[in-house]
Amino acid sequence: MIKSTLQMARESYVPKMPESLNGGVSIVVGDKTQSVDDQADISGMFPNTYGMPILTFEAGGGPNNYPAVNVGVILSGGQAPGGHNVISGLFDGLTSQNSQSCLFGFLGGPIGLMDNQYIELNKELVDHYRNTGGFDMIGSGRTKLEETGQFDKVLENCKRLNIKALVIIGGDDSNTNAAVLAEYFQQKKSGVQVIGVPKTIDGDLKNGMIEASFGFDTACKVYSELIGNIQRDAYSAKKYWHFIKLMGRSASHIALECALQTQPNVTIISEEVEQKKMTLQEVVDMIADVVVKRAADGNNFGSVLIPEGLVEFIPEMKSLIAELNDMLAKHEDEVKLFESNRERREFVAQNLSASASSVFVSLPSSIANQLMLDRDPHGNVQVSLIETEKLLIDMVKAQVKALKKQEEFKGKFNGQAHFFGYEGRCASPSNFDADYCYALGITAAVLVAEGKTGYMASVRNLIAPSQEWIAGGVPVTMMMNMERRHGEMKPVIQKALVDLKGKPFADLVEHREEWAFSTSYIYPGPIQYFGPPSVCDQTTITLQLEQK
Amino acid sequence: MIKSTLQMARESYVPKMPESLNGGVSIVVGDKTQSVDDQADISGMFPNTYGMPILTFEAGGGPNNYPAVNVGVILSGGQAPGGHNVISGLFDGLTSQNSQSCLFGFLGGPIGLMDNQYIELNKELVDHYRNTGGFDMIGSGRTKLEETGQFDKVLENCKRLNIKALVIIGGDDSNTNAAVLAEYFQQKKSGVQVIGVPKTIDGDLKNGMIEASFGFDTACKVYSELIGNIQRDAYSAKKYWHFIKLMGRSASHIALECALQTQPNVTIISEEVEQKKMTLQEVVDMIADVVVKRAADGNNFGSVLIPEGLVEFIPEMKSLIAELNDMLAKHEDEVKLFESNRERREFVAQNLSASASSVFVSLPSSIANQLMLDRDPHGNVQVSLIETEKLLIDMVKAQVKALKKQEEFKGKFNGQAHFFGYEGRCASPSNFDADYCYALGITAAVLVAEGKTGYMASVRNLIAPSQEWIAGGVPVTMMMNMERRHGEMKPVIQKALVDLKGKPFADLVEHREEWAFSTSYIYPGPIQYFGPPSVCDQTTITLQLEQK
Repeated sequence: MIKSTLQMARESYVPKMPESLNGGVSIVVGDKTQSVDDQADISGMFPNTYGMPILTFEAGGGPNNYPAVNVGVILSGGQAPGGHNVISGLFDGLTSQNSQSCLFGFLGGPIGLMDNQYIELNKELVDHYRNTGGFDMIGSGRTKLEETGQFDKVLENCKRLNIKALVIIGGDDSNTNAAVLAEYFQQKKSGVQVIGVPKTIDGDLKNGMIEASFGFDTACKVYSELIGNIQRDAYSAKKYWHFIKLMGRSASHIALECALQTQPNVTIISEEVEQKKMTLQEVVDMIADVVVKRAADGNNFGSVLIPEGLVEFIPEMKSLIAELNDMLAKHEDEVKLFESNRERREFVAQNLSASASSVFVSLPSSIANQLMLDRDPHGNVQVSLIETEKLLIDMVKAQVKALKKQEEFKGKFNGQAHFFGYEGRCASPSNFDADYCYALGITAAVLVAEGKTGYMASVRNLIAPSQEWIAGGVPVTMMMNMERRHGEMKPVIQKALVDLKGKPFADLVEHREEWAFSTSYIYPGPIQYFGPPSVCDQTTITLQLEQK
Repeated sequence: MIKSTLQMARESYVPKMPESLNGGVSIVVGDKTQSVDDQADISGMFPNTYGMPILTFEAGGGPNNYPAVNVGVILSGGQAPGGHNVISGLFDGLTSQNSQSCLFGFLGGPIGLMDNQYIELNKELVDHYRNTGGFDMIGSGRTKLEETGQFDKVLENCKRLNIKALVIIGGDDSNTNAAVLAEYFQQKKSGVQVIGVPKTIDGDLKNGMIEASFGFDTACKVYSELIGNIQRDAYSAKKYWHFIKLMGRSASHIALECALQTQPNVTIISEEVEQKKMTLQEVVDMIADVVVKRAADGNNFGSVLIPEGLVEFIPEMKSLIAELNDMLAKHEDEVKLFESNRERREFVAQNLSASASSVFVSLPSSIANQLMLDRDPHGNVQVSLIETEKLLIDMVKAQVKALKKQEEFKGKFNGQAHFFGYEGRCASPSNFDADYCYALGITAAVLVAEGKTGYMASVRNLIAPSQEWIAGGVPVTMMMNMERRHGEMKPVIQKALVDLKGKPFADLVEHREEWAFSTSYIYPGPIQYFGPPSVCDQTTITLQLEQK
């Protein structure tokens, strides 16, 4: 590995730890828990791991004598800043419990567990990755670990390496699967524990006991740096409207946090669009309205934040996509035969229901073509490929052009499209994420040593200084409810969407009219590691508003 | 202005200054100069300002008693990090020479000078903008100041405000125009001086006396942060090829510097493509070759850096675009009549020369459509709108698909497109740019006080610690030659393209095979302001290689 000067300087950063994790730990056992919903179903499906108590770690308790153990770790799903620090914390935690303990990193995510592809982690290797971004230390992957056949393979590999516990670092799906695996291993009396760690930049894995998933803080700060820079450019050049799409398909936490950090002119929150049952045209009108009013003040520039998943939260678009999937499957050969996309679009429009057809013909032709043609191997529309930022620019442009004819718009409108996602997922973790992740790793090590399974590592009280953070374990089943997935009811961790009654959203609502018209941009600048704590050690505004 | 915590912390940063600018300055007058080429033409066109000597400032010289003066300043052209520090330096320089001196900031670039739109800058205002990015303090604009009528207006406004000197902060075009204005004012014996300051993130305004234009350092660091993050993502996820286009149409300095900072798998340098007269297909083959070889090693991921101006450096594309401009103008009505783009493309292909036609039909249809349809108000193809990054992804995809059929490619290829430009132009300046710009501002103030005109502020020896930097003035005419612009020969500052015999390019050539296949990514991380000098105070690798 060739290290940048920053990477070298960051290697020696020592994460700031909660007092309870600085020495011996005593474990406070709380009340028994139940799942957030569907208690009968969940308790029936998790007879061995349901209802376990919340665990809280306290400082003291004297030196614990733990035997040497072998532990396996995987990174699962999309990258998030801080993953390497979870592994460093886990490694340091295990080897400080017993210097003979051994940590195996399974390669490429869950598939490595099944195929028994692993490396043994040692101090030299771990030291190279402290406080770095990325998941490149052991890689990650998206294979889902959810079938008994897979579980048996994993168990076989664990037995081969004499592994006492698996630590699974992942999002809501991976932690759901970790809980199912834990239950299966308990039922088999295998003696192998499973501990989860909450990861995702999307911010949608959170609840009463998990205040934040790691990576959200850093990713939002990187995106906010870029949004701030672009807004400063917009305000300096005064000639473009920048439409900025932000990663995160299933929830709008990233867009909301970035909005609170940078105060753009328009922020779309998918959850609100869905709740209000807005049409695509209504979303366009909402933006065009701000464009027109700003132009009246002589401001022909602005910024719009768009959550990646927007299209799927607009009821009429969701219906259109569902109809298209059916219709295109039925008429596949006919559609192929047309010589031009114009003819194809006409055919498609004729074969949709009246309401879907009217939405389809309202789309710019490039987007309509994409919906017809870019389909995945199962023949379905690839929603993730829809360039929502360009769709909105095109439609706002058409809208203000129409208003210009009616003399209701006298300004100019030029759009620039951006999409940020990959720029933040592997960024070097902020001090917050570096500290938080290391603490999660140490916490996981304690849960392993204490023989726990079906628990997620939890570090709470996160807006306090890290010394006061509260570490412990939360039963994964506590976060579960039943949801329909691929046509079947499944026990899953409840995804946290943006709470439209919560304080972060209320803060946006309170200010959005002012931000729309007064140009109140904030320019957060790049993440800093070495400066004053007010610059370097603050976490997200979302968390600060939620916890206060 | 609502300030971020970083912005507040940066307000108190004191730029590190060359010793010669810390107190009284004595001026060393060098030899007379001549233009880099076309000396007879240039000297004839600049009878009053040609041949002036290079000026070098030295420390000491005792306190200078300068009378109070009024000075005007404008920001011209695209944003670049550090512009506010040039103004801060100029303000501090002028007011330390005489506390009664006055600085007027003309608004929105050259147009503000002509329309007499200005604000008087005072300490309170300037203090708010110290060490910040953006040009929002007084705005910028792209109006060209090049006609006598405009000059007379400017002069009138200067007289009205009793302005002794104008400081024009801009790129090569703006500084060319500044020199013409200086000559005109001298010829008119107006008594108004004109001083230029070298700005552009593109890095193409440099020569023996101007080692770097300001903003290049910061912008390249922001882009390199993002490229590094994306590369770490590519290496962690191991499933995408990221094609990253970087701003800078007329030269590839940004792509080259970012390549040296991040070591991507493929870097395209437009100047090399042009020198080797490469076809578009050859560029595609060059990338596909790396894709295929990496796949053979099991690496189905990678990174490609693309300079924004690439298409215009590919001879056959340049010819195609020229032919299209003529042909589409001739057949405008016919082309409009077709019902589908497919028919349009067939018509266009039939009406081009054989060679242009064969290039045209080789393009993916979305790009061919764009070339036909997205034309500017003069009817010309809008080269800046061509999504070269997507064009290359599409063509590489087609190429490896063909190779797959021949069993010469057994991997996978999935592309992700990015374009970075607006993300870096208004970033908060690095310590280097903050220091450099402030020094340029002070230098401009000295040139004003010393009654100079037709000079550009110059700060040299930039890879040494800032205490050892050498400040002074360079006659703009010295950097000029004659070039054809819009069909006419004009005196212009010679643009610095990437020197294919220079050390930065040689360094890329030396390593590119290794970087292509061994995955030697570097992850520079975000710009730091408060840490160790090895992290915070280094300038570009380009400059370090050029100067060593």
